[in-house]
Amino acid sequence: MRIAIVGCGQLSRMLALAGLPLGIQFSFIQDDISQNRDCVEGLGIIQKSPMKLEDNSGYDAQAIAQLYQDLGAPDCITVEKEQVDLALLQALAIFCPIYPSVEAIKGCQHRGQEKQLLAKLNIPTSPYFYNQSALEAVKVLGYPVMVKSCTEGYDGKNQWLIKNQADAEQFDQLGADDYIIEAFVAFDKEISLVSLRNKRGQIEHYSLTDNHHEQGILRHSIAPAVNISDATQLQAQGYMERLLTELDYVGVMAMECFVIGEELMINELAPRVHNSGHWTQLGSITCQFENHIRALAGLNLGNTKQIAVTGMLNLIGTEQPPFDALTENSKLYWYNKAVKAQRKLGHINFIGENQQAIREKIAQFESL
Amino acid sequence: MRIAIVGCGQLSRMLALAGLPLGIQFSFIQDDISQNRDCVEGLGIIQKSPMKLEDNSGYDAQAIAQLYQDLGAPDCITVEKEQVDLALLQALAIFCPIYPSVEAIKGCQHRGQEKQLLAKLNIPTSPYFYNQSALEAVKVLGYPVMVKSCTEGYDGKNQWLIKNQADAEQFDQLGADDYIIEAFVAFDKEISLVSLRNKRGQIEHYSLTDNHHEQGILRHSIAPAVNISDATQLQAQGYMERLLTELDYVGVMAMECFVIGEELMINELAPRVHNSGHWTQLGSITCQFENHIRALAGLNLGNTKQIAVTGMLNLIGTEQPPFDALTENSKLYWYNKAVKAQRKLGHINFIGENQQAIREKIAQFESL
Repeated sequence: MRIAIVGCGQLSRMLALAGLPLGIQFSFIQDDISQNRDCVEGLGIIQKSPMKLEDNSGYDAQAIAQLYQDLGAPDCITVEKEQVDLALLQALAIFCPIYPSVEAIKGCQHRGQEKQLLAKLNIPTSPYFYNQSALEAVKVLGYPVMVKSCTEGYDGKNQWLIKNQADAEQFDQLGADDYIIEAFVAFDKEISLVSLRNKRGQIEHYSLTDNHHEQGILRHSIAPAVNISDATQLQAQGYMERLLTELDYVGVMAMECFVIGEELMINELAPRVHNSGHWTQLGSITCQFENHIRALAGLNLGNTKQIAVTGMLNLIGTEQPPFDALTENSKLYWYNKAVKAQRKLGHINFIGENQQAIREKIAQFESL
Repeated sequence: MRIAIVGCGQLSRMLALAGLPLGIQFSFIQDDISQNRDCVEGLGIIQKSPMKLEDNSGYDAQAIAQLYQDLGAPDCITVEKEQVDLALLQALAIFCPIYPSVEAIKGCQHRGQEKQLLAKLNIPTSPYFYNQSALEAVKVLGYPVMVKSCTEGYDGKNQWLIKNQADAEQFDQLGADDYIIEAFVAFDKEISLVSLRNKRGQIEHYSLTDNHHEQGILRHSIAPAVNISDATQLQAQGYMERLLTELDYVGVMAMECFVIGEELMINELAPRVHNSGHWTQLGSITCQFENHIRALAGLNLGNTKQIAVTGMLNLIGTEQPPFDALTENSKLYWYNKAVKAQRKLGHINFIGENQQAIREKIAQFESL
């Protein structure tokens, strides 16, 4: 069996490393020529995606057929990111299935469409306006509000906080397009749920995870999340099941949520393996990467049961693999990427007695 | 960091797959031109070892220097098998450390020397004679006895059972050389201990494992072994610690033992990761492969604690990866080798409630 992945980053790397033991072969589509390929170098065939037609209407059919052959005629194709050219996926879908489907990726790719999907399924999300004047939006939402580009945002990029009338006027003068203005939610904390579904409709969930962001970038996660009632957990799983079923979803999906008292509000969906699920590599019987591959391959899903309280710390801008910091109860995952400030270059997973012990280990590591 | 491994088989494959996540790069020495390279294809540089000098005295120094460069100038070299040409390792040792050391590999490579090492450390092993006439040997050992080639034996190859005088006479007429004649041991069962030591002398053990062989080939393992007293377990660990310390050993070592009542008798040592430790990939927090790499790299060893009762079933001669047999609580490891009767082509690890449940799963699988 051969699986092709769109993207050459660390998620593709970890998917391949989880799938190679099963005898599955991988190939990778470099869909952005500025993209670093080091993460997946040596793990399979790497092919650049062809140029779009000059009129931007799509791709040359022959070039796509050639790409499919050059990828080794994969049995299916998946993605490591939602910001993928849908026309490329649609063109490739003639040759083999795309998992999750192009429709599912499309639904999570655009913040406006994602909000509509959530509304349709009666899943709470923060109030928002699409392409509205900021001055108009704040009449309903009040200050502050957050402006987010519908398609370009990740790791806190392309987001602006509007705190007052001056900010709102300034934004309106920019002539921006394809954005949402979201009400500011005074949440207690951020959690996420990583779940998956296979072709037969089997759904499994990982433990809810506490996530700590700084400057819009995930710094660390700890699972299971603390102070979450059974009811809230079931609520999160229920929302996820509605989404996965509605989208006839195949693979791993992540759902980022704000916790407000006993209620959840969905902040964002990711139709792929997710940074807040990296802890599963050490803390669960089967990690999110292997389970994504199992789902694509039509296999039974692996046990998602957690074996110990686990933390994940992103290594951001760390220049060398921090071998010396490894202990009996921690593991290192290094991405082989060129070093750059604020770039995720690896992560460490820790297991420990309880969440407090994990927090202390993380604080200790961060102070090194 | 780069590590080179002598050998291109499944153990090299699994070592590389366990080390790649740490950002370590691998290269492989194909020391036997008849050897299949498919297991490690794509996981790193593969280089053939140079030819020996015509007078068999060793290797051309320049060819070895070239090999070392072609391997990417590794930081250290390890082996996936004990039957390695020691002259090749000695020649390479000029450029970087060999772990475990050439002396340690030598000590486990030759059955006669292995017996001497065990005797020196006061570790029990079955009575034997080296290069003795079978007719003479049986006067002391009685019938039956087992004749084993000192260097060529694995998976039950190059072993002969001598049941009576006719067999003994026939053997003596063969003019065999470099063999041992071992007393037949009426053991209760076969177990193994897989342990490891790093450069700082830290030693860790995995659980004792029950092993079931057929025709000299390991069919399945279950860990932890049943009906083993704490005293017996401590005895096994004590023997292992004596061995690892005596050899100033770095890496994973496996010790196969016969259990006779409360006593252990050492059958064989393997200076490498071992088939009876494959269950650790699913059943332990850190598997034997990652821990071997950690030991070589001078890192803290990972936790060897067992997370669930685990079984390992070798897939012998199975033509295709048995994807359909995978369940929530099992994982597949496929080696990408050419199919051949009686060849190990992959394995499955299972976790379960208890040893009985695992035995049933294995029986169920074997009957498919």
